[in-house]
Amino acid sequence: MKYEGKAKRVYATAEPGEYIVEYKDDATAFNAQKRGSWVGKGATNNAITAHLYPQLEAAGVPTHFVRRLSDTEQLVKAVTIVPVEVIVRNVAAGSFSKRLGIEEGTPLTHPVVEYCYKSDALGDPLINTDTALSLGWATEPQLLRIRELALKIRGFLTPYFEQRGVRLIDFKLEFGTLPDGTVVLADEISPDTCRFWDAQTNEKMDKDRFRRDLGGIEDAYAEMLRRVTTEV
Amino acid sequence: MKYEGKAKRVYATAEPGEYIVEYKDDATAFNAQKRGSWVGKGATNNAITAHLYPQLEAAGVPTHFVRRLSDTEQLVKAVTIVPVEVIVRNVAAGSFSKRLGIEEGTPLTHPVVEYCYKSDALGDPLINTDTALSLGWATEPQLLRIRELALKIRGFLTPYFEQRGVRLIDFKLEFGTLPDGTVVLADEISPDTCRFWDAQTNEKMDKDRFRRDLGGIEDAYAEMLRRVTTEV
Ligand SMILES: Nc1ncnc2c1ncn2[C@@H]1O[C@H](COP(=O)(O)OP(=O)(O)OP(=O)(O)O)[C@@H](O)[C@H]1O
Ligand SMILES: Nc1ncnc2c1ncn2[C@@H]1O[C@H](COP(=O)(O)OP(=O)(O)OP(=O)(O)O)[C@@H](O)[C@H]1O
Ligand SMILES: [Mg+2]
Ligand SMILES: [Mg+2]
Repeated sequence: MKYEGKAKRVYATAEPGEYIVEYKDDATAFNAQKRGSWVGKGATNNAITAHLYPQLEAAGVPTHFVRRLSDTEQLVKAVTIVPVEVIVRNVAAGSFSKRLGIEEGTPLTHPVVEYCYKSDALGDPLINTDTALSLGWATEPQLLRIRELALKIRGFLTPYFEQRGVRLIDFKLEFGTLPDGTVVLADEISPDTCRFWDAQTNEKMDKDRFRRDLGGIEDAYAEMLRRVTTEV
Repeated sequence: MKYEGKAKRVYATAEPGEYIVEYKDDATAFNAQKRGSWVGKGATNNAITAHLYPQLEAAGVPTHFVRRLSDTEQLVKAVTIVPVEVIVRNVAAGSFSKRLGIEEGTPLTHPVVEYCYKSDALGDPLINTDTALSLGWATEPQLLRIRELALKIRGFLTPYFEQRGVRLIDFKLEFGTLPDGTVVLADEISPDTCRFWDAQTNEKMDKDRFRRDLGGIEDAYAEMLRRVTTEV
């Protein structure tokens, strides 16, 4: 195994440029202070990511995704992960609401792109692009490209979910570089990494049900898989 | 009185477009959890600001400064303060070092401009320009101008202090708008709002002596006034 994370395992393959990602049933929150797990979580997130990434590719977003291999596994291109997590926000929620005293659910008049330094030890602190540049975490062209891709992904996903009765509140992305320097979307897009609110009821359909002990987490993830794979 | 802050008082004048700013001897740190005061602090900060702002004007930075009125008072243009504090960093220190686990004194390869929401209640949280824009704290042209001016100020101040044996580690700026919309540098530039390290010894010559109980605070401020007003 190359790497065991909190939600996935990454395995080398015979092909040096390819990894297998196995999605686990484990869930963590608050920098792994809260832990849980439920049957089917890994398969659901694997299926949702595997459904979305080819569509993002078709919309002009290069991704690491190659193909789904099994219920819980997918083949991806090996990338060097840029150690900057990218959060895109349409509506105030979570840490943003808390930090700024803005009520959850307040729509943002402009998309907000936030950057955090990927460091469990430091609790993924908020940074900005100047900081990423000056500490050598990314280059200026990479940061420009990452922002451009993040906004393109938002432009694709927001109406995609809206058409399926889901408000895309915010989402977290990770990017990596291929050996030739190309920046590609890596990691996953799933209820673990997005906030999804039902368009009719504003009910949460994402990991906040686990973070906040709201119950019905299996059903929420299953319903999100159903919606994501709905043809409209 | 218009407003009493932690370090200054702002008074209206007969002229609606002008305020008198009185510099107090009070010092606070850690969002006013630590309090102190020493004789001469207000006069020193008033003198340092009054010495620098006209030179910044001459270097192409519009400021609120009109003239010094007395030991502790200066006349300024009344502005609407943009509720975004701007921190410019040449070298890692303070909250930046702590948040990112970067040793104090580590030079930054690029200038880092950080933005904080000016809110004592929230502890001046770190934000970015997307957030300022989407929550209506500043407009896009204002934010572009603020960054341009912040870097121009850095370009003036860094060699200015270097020529006087002082490393300018970082500094905090506040900007405001005049009734016609012009963005101007407001507030103060002083050992309260900058980190100054002696070029020879790296000794701190700023409010960190108060924050960290290093002693010799009066002497450090007096020495900074002497250096700032030295002709080179
Ligand atoms: N294509 C890829 N190539 C290499 N690494 C990848 C790729 N896609 C994702 N990763 C990395 O694999 C790991 C996925 O595991 P998981 O999501 O469980 O991590 P995590 O516990 O969230 O920890 P981390 O804080 O590292 O994200 C992450 O570190 C992610 O950055
Ligand atoms: N030209 C100006 N016109 C109007 N207000 C100004 C001007 N220059 C500075 N100010 C404001 O006056 C106040 C100065 O007082 P002081 O520095 O003591 O405030 P503070 O205690 O640091 O609190 P704050 O968090 O508001 O800065 C600040 O709120 C500052 O934004
Ligand atoms: Mg992860
Ligand atoms: Mg102040």
